[in-house]
Amino acid sequence: MKKTSKLKHLIHSQNLEFLMEAHYGLSAKIVEEAGFKGIWASGLSMTAAMGVRDSNEASWTQVLDVLEFMSDATSIPILLDGDTGYGNFNNARRLVKKLEQRNIAGVCIEDKLFPKTNSFLNGEAQPLAEVDEFCGKIKAMKDTQNDDDFIVVARVEAFIAGWGLMEVLRRAEAYRQAGADAVLIHSNRSDMTEIEIFMNEWNGRHPVVIVPTKYYSTPTKRFRELGISVAIWANHNLRASIDAMQKISRQIYQDESLIGVEGQVTTLEEVFRLQRADELQAAEMKYLPSHENIQGD
Amino acid sequence: MKKTSKLKHLIHSQNLEFLMEAHYGLSAKIVEEAGFKGIWASGLSMTAAMGVRDSNEASWTQVLDVLEFMSDATSIPILLDGDTGYGNFNNARRLVKKLEQRNIAGVCIEDKLFPKTNSFLNGEAQPLAEVDEFCGKIKAMKDTQNDDDFIVVARVEAFIAGWGLMEVLRRAEAYRQAGADAVLIHSNRSDMTEIEIFMNEWNGRHPVVIVPTKYYSTPTKRFRELGISVAIWANHNLRASIDAMQKISRQIYQDESLIGVEGQVTTLEEVFRLQRADELQAAEMKYLPSHENIQGD
Amino acid sequence: MKKTSKLKHLIHSQNLEFLMEAHYGLSAKIVEEAGFKGIWASGLSMTAAMGVRDSNEASWTQVLDVLEFMSDATSIPILLDGDTGYGNFNNARRLVKKLEQRNIAGVCIEDKLFPKTNSFLNGEAQPLAEVDEFCGKIKAMKDTQNDDDFIVVARVEAFIAGWGLMEVLRRAEAYRQAGADAVLIHSNRSDMTEIEIFMNEWNGRHPVVIVPTKYYSTPTKRFRELGISVAIWANHNLRASIDAMQKISRQIYQDESLIGVEGQVTTLEEVFRLQRADELQAAEMKYLPSHENIQGD
Amino acid sequence: MKKTSKLKHLIHSQNLEFLMEAHYGLSAKIVEEAGFKGIWASGLSMTAAMGVRDSNEASWTQVLDVLEFMSDATSIPILLDGDTGYGNFNNARRLVKKLEQRNIAGVCIEDKLFPKTNSFLNGEAQPLAEVDEFCGKIKAMKDTQNDDDFIVVARVEAFIAGWGLMEVLRRAEAYRQAGADAVLIHSNRSDMTEIEIFMNEWNGRHPVVIVPTKYYSTPTKRFRELGISVAIWANHNLRASIDAMQKISRQIYQDESLIGVEGQVTTLEEVFRLQRADELQAAEMKYLPSHENIQGD
Repeated sequence: MKKTSKLKHLIHSQNLEFLMEAHYGLSAKIVEEAGFKGIWASGLSMTAAMGVRDSNEASWTQVLDVLEFMSDATSIPILLDGDTGYGNFNNARRLVKKLEQRNIAGVCIEDKLFPKTNSFLNGEAQPLAEVDEFCGKIKAMKDTQNDDDFIVVARVEAFIAGWGLMEVLRRAEAYRQAGADAVLIHSNRSDMTEIEIFMNEWNGRHPVVIVPTKYYSTPTKRFRELGISVAIWANHNLRASIDAMQKISRQIYQDESLIGVEGQVTTLEEVFRLQRADELQAAEMKYLPSHENIQGD
Repeated sequence: MKKTSKLKHLIHSQNLEFLMEAHYGLSAKIVEEAGFKGIWASGLSMTAAMGVRDSNEASWTQVLDVLEFMSDATSIPILLDGDTGYGNFNNARRLVKKLEQRNIAGVCIEDKLFPKTNSFLNGEAQPLAEVDEFCGKIKAMKDTQNDDDFIVVARVEAFIAGWGLMEVLRRAEAYRQAGADAVLIHSNRSDMTEIEIFMNEWNGRHPVVIVPTKYYSTPTKRFRELGISVAIWANHNLRASIDAMQKISRQIYQDESLIGVEGQVTTLEEVFRLQRADELQAAEMKYLPSHENIQGD
Repeated sequence: MKKTSKLKHLIHSQNLEFLMEAHYGLSAKIVEEAGFKGIWASGLSMTAAMGVRDSNEASWTQVLDVLEFMSDATSIPILLDGDTGYGNFNNARRLVKKLEQRNIAGVCIEDKLFPKTNSFLNGEAQPLAEVDEFCGKIKAMKDTQNDDDFIVVARVEAFIAGWGLMEVLRRAEAYRQAGADAVLIHSNRSDMTEIEIFMNEWNGRHPVVIVPTKYYSTPTKRFRELGISVAIWANHNLRASIDAMQKISRQIYQDESLIGVEGQVTTLEEVFRLQRADELQAAEMKYLPSHENIQGD
Repeated sequence: MKKTSKLKHLIHSQNLEFLMEAHYGLSAKIVEEAGFKGIWASGLSMTAAMGVRDSNEASWTQVLDVLEFMSDATSIPILLDGDTGYGNFNNARRLVKKLEQRNIAGVCIEDKLFPKTNSFLNGEAQPLAEVDEFCGKIKAMKDTQNDDDFIVVARVEAFIAGWGLMEVLRRAEAYRQAGADAVLIHSNRSDMTEIEIFMNEWNGRHPVVIVPTKYYSTPTKRFRELGISVAIWANHNLRASIDAMQKISRQIYQDESLIGVEGQVTTLEEVFRLQRADELQAAEMKYLPSHENIQGD
């Protein structure tokens, strides 16, 4: 099955499904090996890994380069956290073409302005995109895709921007009508009340995606009761890796030695396995001339 | 002090100095914050992070793009693990120009053939570059650098390729005479005997760099006794992060929840701190018009 | 019809067919508008346009970036002049995957060593790749392609390297048996005698491609008589543009004015037409909110 | 002298100076060889060459890649036509850092909104950036540059957007006070009247740059009388090359032969000269082992 179709099935599945964050090729492969059915290519994680801010400091083609490595390393679908689509409708539809070429299954765009700011950063509420402009962007993206199953998720930032339920509903409905395959309702509260009041009014009109980073303590059972389609674990591979690298770097710095850490870290053999060194060694047997052949040539 | 001069000082320091591996911008910053004076941009780690093999599957400009993010995120010098220089002398001297532009302090090249294979992979001994050809490459690189302090380290693979001490000495001396700023003597034994017999004969002629990945259990005191200039902890941030990501991915997959992991991972605030979100917020105060100004405009 | 299938048809057509050189997106579009059925993405032209040498100074991904723009701008197939495949069989098969993603119809690889030197440069004859090694590369490429119609052309450099007919025949036959879709027999003589003696012996075994840059004065009728499948006009857009730019730059420099040149150069309107500005203006009408909508929002 | 200092001298020279357009490495070299003292890296030309529109369809790092080739191929300074700075003040200051690394001498930004539209395209007048926002961008760029001589030119689009002299003067003065090294006053009229009325009021306050693409028939003597600092010949290499490629492609298509064109186009030897093939051949003599050495090794 195509990756796009796999992602479409996840979104339309009767069960609650999950996407797990990855930020480069290796982490994407780790997500797949853990058993997940899909990958969230987090803007925050990818940019943090690069060492830049989640404010469009990396160009959209630099993000694309990371995605290509992620897609090449895995067989499960990737949903890109695509910020605002990196500009207007024309930039967004161009993005769709490039994502399809690189076998990315879908993209989520958010109704903010370019350049974006991360939604979890404290600070003033950010201005939102106009509804009409954002709907035009969604339409342009859906009209552009070659593969019918390519997914466009529209992310509603109105709760975070300080607007109430009515504005969230108005936007979610407009984005649905514009052709979005699902809506992502974002909230930065530590409980799930905003999502709950939305789901009650929304009444199953269209698939809903959530990112429970801030309301992580809400039991997953509650997501199911509310009829959520997909929950995204949005940045935890990055956060786990930061912790691990800080600890190992400090320990090695203090110890001035590897003796204390060797048993704690993944073996080199596991690194080679993840890189599929075995496939290359087999291919070398198949495609490289043997030494005897070389000498006899 | 320029990054190149910092690296030169490390190499010529009377003390044993250390470089710690990083593989993208964020890990480079973590290395700096841990206290290290220099970074090893490991070919194995960078390619593994991408999800490809350490066999020149990534192009040299893709590696350069990663290095640029690493250098931009840090103020300590970076020594690139530059494989064979990605081709002949002409490719290698072009690499030097590009590294200087991106503020990379130096590069280590190894006397193998393009495309390379990782030295720790089991398999047949790999053929080595001819001494004359490799010396020509070193000369071309040194003649090309604009900054007198840019560092070229020549890595001798003869022990790993199954040659004895005489060949290692012959190559190290030839590379020294060709202009290399230091030699890296590589060994894949689990003890340090190869390095020891080399250091006894070498007799302090020129700085020596080592990579004790396989002989990790040798006490660092021994490196000092032998007069080693720089020891490289070559891939431990990568290996620590793989372990951490595999564990967190498996746990979240099994739990279908973040409840059990929230306290274990770095906070979002720490992610934002590493990205220097505060600098951008201060800059926005300085360079963006206030809302009142906007309305009055 | 897929671009790969179009190229396959050209190669297997009963008629002599032609490919015309292009070196970036705009020149590719010009080739298509002139009526040609296929494009030769010349290594010499692409690197010369970048300002570097045809000696693998540009990385293979930098070449790929140019190809992507060329393919996006056109609907006719592109055959890449892919040097040696940029390394060994593993680099070459990775190239095939990347070309397929970017909708490039095929690649021609030559039996020289990496890094390559242009075949028309005066100098010593270059050493050739071993036959077995090159055949392994062809097999690896053909085994890798997802699209059955993707084309691999094997270029025989033995005439240029100073070998005689027997070596050329031996190589052409080996490459055919290894799975190449066609052989390109290269010659740097100013007459066509080398090609003629080859075609007499080859006897229509498999499609033959030629590059008559040096024997340009041979009438095309002769190519047809010999049963050539495809002739490549390999670098003439580049060479025409160099001449034009040198003349206009000198004239404007001397005149210190545009008055004398305005009528000689393409209009701005033609530039906008080639960029398909009209499609964007129509899309803006469709996808951007009107000013009244903006105000009413 | 540094490239930045060269450009600064051009701008502050008592004479009228000229920049000539280039759009990739080779055309930049041709501009230098024609005698020009500086290069205009035109956004329209670079994007047209890629085969995309001058509407930020290429990412800013894709533009950067072209600039790097241009700068590497030349010794005269390059002024980048940098659109709006590719986003807000933060994107623009990041651009400055990247340009400095690649040895680009300066950048011109225009007071329009991202994504931009070419100023010469017919259509509705485009909305302009707010003055305060644009001045903050200029300040951020000037505060960021490491090299005191790096140049930021502020381009005033108010005439083209349909505003009168007062708005143009208000903006030019604000940009001057914000730190711009020069102002570029743009006009799309076929005569020079807008520039003339501006220069009369401006009264030599600060260097003025013009782009006489539309008023090409105005004698250059008039620019001198008005006290213009720099005139940019903005897109003529591209337009000359389009014309040349269209003609040669059509002729070869119709002739099905090179016989008629060989004498009309640049020789291969000239291509090799422009690529500096001789330098590489000399370097091979110096850095590659001779065949005897190889055999004796």
